[in-house]
Amino acid sequence: MSSKTVESSEKQQRGDVTSAKASKKEAKLQFQLKVPKGTKDWADKDMVIREAIFNSLSSLFKRHGGVTIDTPVFELREILAGKYGEDSKLIYNLEDQGGELCSLRYDLTVPFARYVAMNNIQNIKRYHIAKVYRRDQPAMTKGRMREFYQCDFDVAGVYDRMVPDSEALSILVEGLQGLGINDFKIKINHRKILDGIFKVCGVKDEDVRKISSAVDKLDKSPWDAVKKEMVVEKGQTEETADRIGEYVKLNGSLAEVLEVLKQKEELTSNEFAAQGLEDMEILLTYLDAFDITDKVSFDLSLARGLDYYTGLIYECVTAASAPPENAAELKKKKQGKEDEDASEYVGVGSIAAGGRYDNLVNMFATATGKKNVSIPCVGVSFGVERIFSLIKAREAAKTEESIKPTATQVFVMAFGGGPDWKGLLPERMRIAKQLWNVGIESEYVYKAKVNPRKQFDAADKSGASVAVILGKEEFAEGKVRVKRLGQQFADDDGEIVPLEQVVSKVQEKLSEAKDDHGYDNVTRLLKGL
Amino acid sequence: MSSKTVESSEKQQRGDVTSAKASKKEAKLQFQLKVPKGTKDWADKDMVIREAIFNSLSSLFKRHGGVTIDTPVFELREILAGKYGEDSKLIYNLEDQGGELCSLRYDLTVPFARYVAMNNIQNIKRYHIAKVYRRDQPAMTKGRMREFYQCDFDVAGVYDRMVPDSEALSILVEGLQGLGINDFKIKINHRKILDGIFKVCGVKDEDVRKISSAVDKLDKSPWDAVKKEMVVEKGQTEETADRIGEYVKLNGSLAEVLEVLKQKEELTSNEFAAQGLEDMEILLTYLDAFDITDKVSFDLSLARGLDYYTGLIYECVTAASAPPENAAELKKKKQGKEDEDASEYVGVGSIAAGGRYDNLVNMFATATGKKNVSIPCVGVSFGVERIFSLIKAREAAKTEESIKPTATQVFVMAFGGGPDWKGLLPERMRIAKQLWNVGIESEYVYKAKVNPRKQFDAADKSGASVAVILGKEEFAEGKVRVKRLGQQFADDDGEIVPLEQVVSKVQEKLSEAKDDHGYDNVTRLLKGL
Repeated sequence: MSSKTVESSEKQQRGDVTSAKASKKEAKLQFQLKVPKGTKDWADKDMVIREAIFNSLSSLFKRHGGVTIDTPVFELREILAGKYGEDSKLIYNLEDQGGELCSLRYDLTVPFARYVAMNNIQNIKRYHIAKVYRRDQPAMTKGRMREFYQCDFDVAGVYDRMVPDSEALSILVEGLQGLGINDFKIKINHRKILDGIFKVCGVKDEDVRKISSAVDKLDKSPWDAVKKEMVVEKGQTEETADRIGEYVKLNGSLAEVLEVLKQKEELTSNEFAAQGLEDMEILLTYLDAFDITDKVSFDLSLARGLDYYTGLIYECVTAASAPPENAAELKKKKQGKEDEDASEYVGVGSIAAGGRYDNLVNMFATATGKKNVSIPCVGVSFGVERIFSLIKAREAAKTEESIKPTATQVFVMAFGGGPDWKGLLPERMRIAKQLWNVGIESEYVYKAKVNPRKQFDAADKSGASVAVILGKEEFAEGKVRVKRLGQQFADDDGEIVPLEQVVSKVQEKLSEAKDDHGYDNVTRLLKGL
Repeated sequence: MSSKTVESSEKQQRGDVTSAKASKKEAKLQFQLKVPKGTKDWADKDMVIREAIFNSLSSLFKRHGGVTIDTPVFELREILAGKYGEDSKLIYNLEDQGGELCSLRYDLTVPFARYVAMNNIQNIKRYHIAKVYRRDQPAMTKGRMREFYQCDFDVAGVYDRMVPDSEALSILVEGLQGLGINDFKIKINHRKILDGIFKVCGVKDEDVRKISSAVDKLDKSPWDAVKKEMVVEKGQTEETADRIGEYVKLNGSLAEVLEVLKQKEELTSNEFAAQGLEDMEILLTYLDAFDITDKVSFDLSLARGLDYYTGLIYECVTAASAPPENAAELKKKKQGKEDEDASEYVGVGSIAAGGRYDNLVNMFATATGKKNVSIPCVGVSFGVERIFSLIKAREAAKTEESIKPTATQVFVMAFGGGPDWKGLLPERMRIAKQLWNVGIESEYVYKAKVNPRKQFDAADKSGASVAVILGKEEFAEGKVRVKRLGQQFADDDGEIVPLEQVVSKVQEKLSEAKDDHGYDNVTRLLKGL
């Protein structure tokens, strides 16, 4: 960085009164030009791909009767308090500048529950696509950011058991398939079954949540490490840990594992576990109706970190997103290095997840003096940044540059020369305006005198498939040339038409060119074609 | 608010292990359920209208060759420093939780300039639709919020004078017209002309910005008050103030006012003013090419508060958005009351605005040690919340409830009864899934046993235009009924078809019902039909 002050360098560049004033104020300004840690700018093709993902998911959510809401990016601090367990330390706070204390939202679920409780809503299917904030250790290449999007669909209301739960799973499957992701597995489990297991294995009530969070590490750590955590750090007996170990190693198809668990009398005689097993039995019928039973595996090691889940929980991983087998091993070797480096051995994690949370709305309602409010909820959340990484990798595997960031279809140019040549700029503008008026994406070079080569280059960069060319002589006779663009049309001179027919001729050429231009290719990319 | 603790009331409601744990943590939780001051939840029809506005504007921006970017909601604090003049006190800061100091973005312009400088971008047309944050005194009914959306289109790059400027004005006109707003006027002015005027009237260089901000108040305060501010608070002589007064009272068509100013020799001989007048002369030609000259009025009292403008500036008001004639008077009467109350007499303000800022990118580039970077910019910003208020008022004027928040087209029902009746819930799910698979928005009641009345009510609420009905006897024979919904079809029994034809029959009925259902009405609303 240069040690030169802004003031001195700006004085050289600017002569006007305004900036002379401004530069004085900035005199002390000396800094690196960057975005905050764990955040990034999105641009170009990436934005086109991401918007296509959002469109795909919001169409899906609408298809299931969802309405959308938009809550503030920050909430009163007390709204978020006590909802995220150990992760609460990752919440971003706003500075106390007088007035209320606020924090950036950590997810979209707590604001949703606050919204439902605040407005006395009895039932709603809502989707919400928005950014959330976590002061986590970023691992950008894996899609772990401090600012990232969530795409959530949640159902609130009293309904028959497992009906909205199974639809949430169907939405998960449809959502991924709609994005060309077919190679995935949804791990499911049930908080009440887990609670029952911990209970019958001898865990005290007050230790349940911390044992649950130890179990949750089984996807990244071997059993021995998790057992050690339970015994050494979390005060359980060897015997309790071993008995838990027998249970949480179980996984397989929903029907299979359910059959095994139903044989365990200690479990079926526990009130919570029995409720959970009944839920899973009902779920099986509905998953069958939705024809998604084969997408699901019952995995007793799935615990999910968040405090608020009370029933069915699920997490979706793809082969591409799973951490490598030896993640723990590799991590160990890296010790001494920064966390961020070590995390490169962790996969992108789950690409979608969710579960049932029956008490969150009540918690808000009760905290504000309302009684006996029971609005059970279930939801699913898509990790867009992670899904984006997968789709981006798919695009990188293609050789040709297939997606354009602009939607431009027509480029308006003028060719001429000689001493009296002014470049027909207002005339190009007039034609562009006619095209805009009928909804056609059109551009022209923002210069009066510009040679044909530069105009063709600009047209090429824009991705336009049709050119309107104002030739000096032709235009003097009230005519313009309309031609297709692209290498295969290099020898095609197009057609000369009277000025008043330019719009209709452009429309004709565009309908010939339909689907030719790169902007539409994102649809093909999303479908994995 | 009840003084009962969460713990005791929650214990009554919940029996499971999970919540017994959670409730202990929440024991101290006692608060009001609300959103932070100056923010709001968006939902229902309002969301449908707002999304339609966003879609209309982003199509417009794409039509002009725009690409979109997404920057983080917070920036490093030093990025925002010194860009907003007196308004800097309205910036929201994030708490210092270790690491970088950050602030929420105040507009989309400064992050855009930071993005352009940081990535060495030579030219770009970008649009950005996102929330910005200002710790202002909220006036919610007028659309003045602390969290609100901006829709910006900006052009960066070295081009022929006034070419992108005139396109920005054309975009402004097209944007509003595309939303059915036709009764508006764009006030334009030029910072260099203003600077020249101040100079020739005797204002010292260092006083220019504060005199400019005094002039900016002329749309809300009478000349006498502004003059007093200049003389008493801002130390100008009576004569200087009076001479400024003569100039800033000028307004009219661009051609007229330009003619008047060109006669003033003191002005044409000032370097800055002469440049500005030349710009306005060029602009006239291009506005004519875009056929928008009649939308524009040259108003020398327009100054715009922000520090960074350097050339053409503009602000758009509608009859509906202008403050009442006697705003200042009414405000005076209210003195002693809270600011928020007084502001109810202020109109929704400008609904779109923008201008040229040629030094902002340079400022960033220079601050980080780069030299001689010159990336001039011009942009336009739509105030969506304010535009929303206008469109919402238009909707309120209509008598019928025309917009539905859901996109639901089909409702799947089952009718039956008797002791063996289970409600055909998995069968309804199976049919809904078939409809989802071909992209049809479909719902069903999430209950097994539910009577026809309740199912019709739910269908009505969803806005569905077609019902699939599983009648007990018909379904036993592998058949379902497909019928149109809505009052005019009350006596229409629909058609009975074999199960395997349900999708094609639904598609047939839907194409008959096309445009009948409320969700599409938002298009009509936006067009002001």
